[in-house]
Amino acid sequence: MRVLIHLDGSVADPDTPQVRVDDLGLLRGDGVFETVLVSGGHARELDKHLDRLERSAGMLDMDTPDRQAWQRAVAAAIERWPEGSEMALKLVYTRGLDSDPGADPTAFALGIEVSEGLLRARAEGIAVVTLERGIDTELAERAPWLLLGAKSLSYGINMAAMREAERRGAEDVIFTAGDGTVLEGPIANVVVADAGTLYTPPPSIGILPGTTQAGLFRAAERAGWSTKIEPLRLEDLRDADGVFLTSSIRKVTRIHTLDGEQLPDSRALHAELAAAYESEYPG
Amino acid sequence: MRVLIHLDGSVADPDTPQVRVDDLGLLRGDGVFETVLVSGGHARELDKHLDRLERSAGMLDMDTPDRQAWQRAVAAAIERWPEGSEMALKLVYTRGLDSDPGADPTAFALGIEVSEGLLRARAEGIAVVTLERGIDTELAERAPWLLLGAKSLSYGINMAAMREAERRGAEDVIFTAGDGTVLEGPIANVVVADAGTLYTPPPSIGILPGTTQAGLFRAAERAGWSTKIEPLRLEDLRDADGVFLTSSIRKVTRIHTLDGEQLPDSRALHAELAAAYESEYPG
Repeated sequence: MRVLIHLDGSVADPDTPQVRVDDLGLLRGDGVFETVLVSGGHARELDKHLDRLERSAGMLDMDTPDRQAWQRAVAAAIERWPEGSEMALKLVYTRGLDSDPGADPTAFALGIEVSEGLLRARAEGIAVVTLERGIDTELAERAPWLLLGAKSLSYGINMAAMREAERRGAEDVIFTAGDGTVLEGPIANVVVADAGTLYTPPPSIGILPGTTQAGLFRAAERAGWSTKIEPLRLEDLRDADGVFLTSSIRKVTRIHTLDGEQLPDSRALHAELAAAYESEYPG
Repeated sequence: MRVLIHLDGSVADPDTPQVRVDDLGLLRGDGVFETVLVSGGHARELDKHLDRLERSAGMLDMDTPDRQAWQRAVAAAIERWPEGSEMALKLVYTRGLDSDPGADPTAFALGIEVSEGLLRARAEGIAVVTLERGIDTELAERAPWLLLGAKSLSYGINMAAMREAERRGAEDVIFTAGDGTVLEGPIANVVVADAGTLYTPPPSIGILPGTTQAGLFRAAERAGWSTKIEPLRLEDLRDADGVFLTSSIRKVTRIHTLDGEQLPDSRALHAELAAAYESEYPG
């Protein structure tokens, strides 16, 4: 099951070609995206996702996305999706055609099913490896042309890191800076739970601000947790009560093994945080 | 004028959609490419480009490209291109569809005209700025998942660097490592001429091996130059007889201004090297 809505509102068939070969999203990875979880007919954190799409587009010097058009496209996708099953809804916004710089950006919402693998990961937890990202934590501020913290279509190294994890017998990655500072996953944020406080690293070090992480922190605060946004080191992860990867589609996924080493059992903690997170949303 | 040949040999219309929205080349910048200059009906350095396509595909764990099919596609594109004008021929090879991991890669050859801007740059030279690339020179070896030196479709930061150059009143970029080591341009290699020797940095520091640079070095050696592949520092550029960016479409483009500072007049040197380079190719 898939559903495709162009930003102009037209419904299209995802099984037929829709994009030209000289689209800069394809030729250069030149564009931005978001992935929104639709559950119970509700697009979670849609405003925050649209904020971040706008922020990413700004970092790439692209025109500001038309917020209302995106809201309409999301609504149209939801309307066409069968009730009772979750949808992973990708919002894709490219610089448009190489051959016609004056043309409109390419923009569409593509809804797909949540993969079996991610559903299993949510339930059972995952093994994760740490991989060097090759940056220092001041680089994002010093060199904005490196687009650190933009959710761009140039995710080649994120995908390569996921393949490296698989080679090492793991299912996901935590990137680290050269000095051992914890950054983020290739497609998720890192959240650490320890002694009643949730921690996540600050976006200023060159990572994506997390929509799911923010939702979880809000929910956890209501449930009596403290939250802190501050730099984390690898050692902080090994000693914590629980370590999690958060993303729209992963929700709050528990890490049970880090670099081959089993972490403390965080199943009860995970159940508590997952329930708090779910309580944030209707449906 | 544009010509589009899919790898299966079929001729297609580049003005109509040819690619599905869930192509991983589009959604993730997950694929590789080459750009070949066709001049006088001859595809320059085609073997070297296909070698490098294969090398990039290997770095991304993709199936080895079908060399003969690519050769046929290139020949078909040349056959359809009007004689007497150069063609920039892009070979694009993506991981294929997200929805069907077993499906064939997406693969096509797209021929376009060489832009006015690049023709002018070849003739008149360019102003270039240096920008930090945020890596150290050992990173490529240490962290292959960062795909340094692969010609991948994830060129978002290369494009962002070109926009940064424009903001600074320049036309191109030389990336540097954190320690001031010269790396490469976003879509070109750096060549320095000094006292009868041509220099370029080694690919092992995390840059693309240059096909045009290699052709130029071969030609220059025949014309009596020495050539050296060794690390360069920014100071080496400022003091040299001439500094050039080389790429298939740029050929040997002279840098007249570096970070706002005018370099020594290298017009005669450029004419000499450009002529040597042209003599390598028939037509």
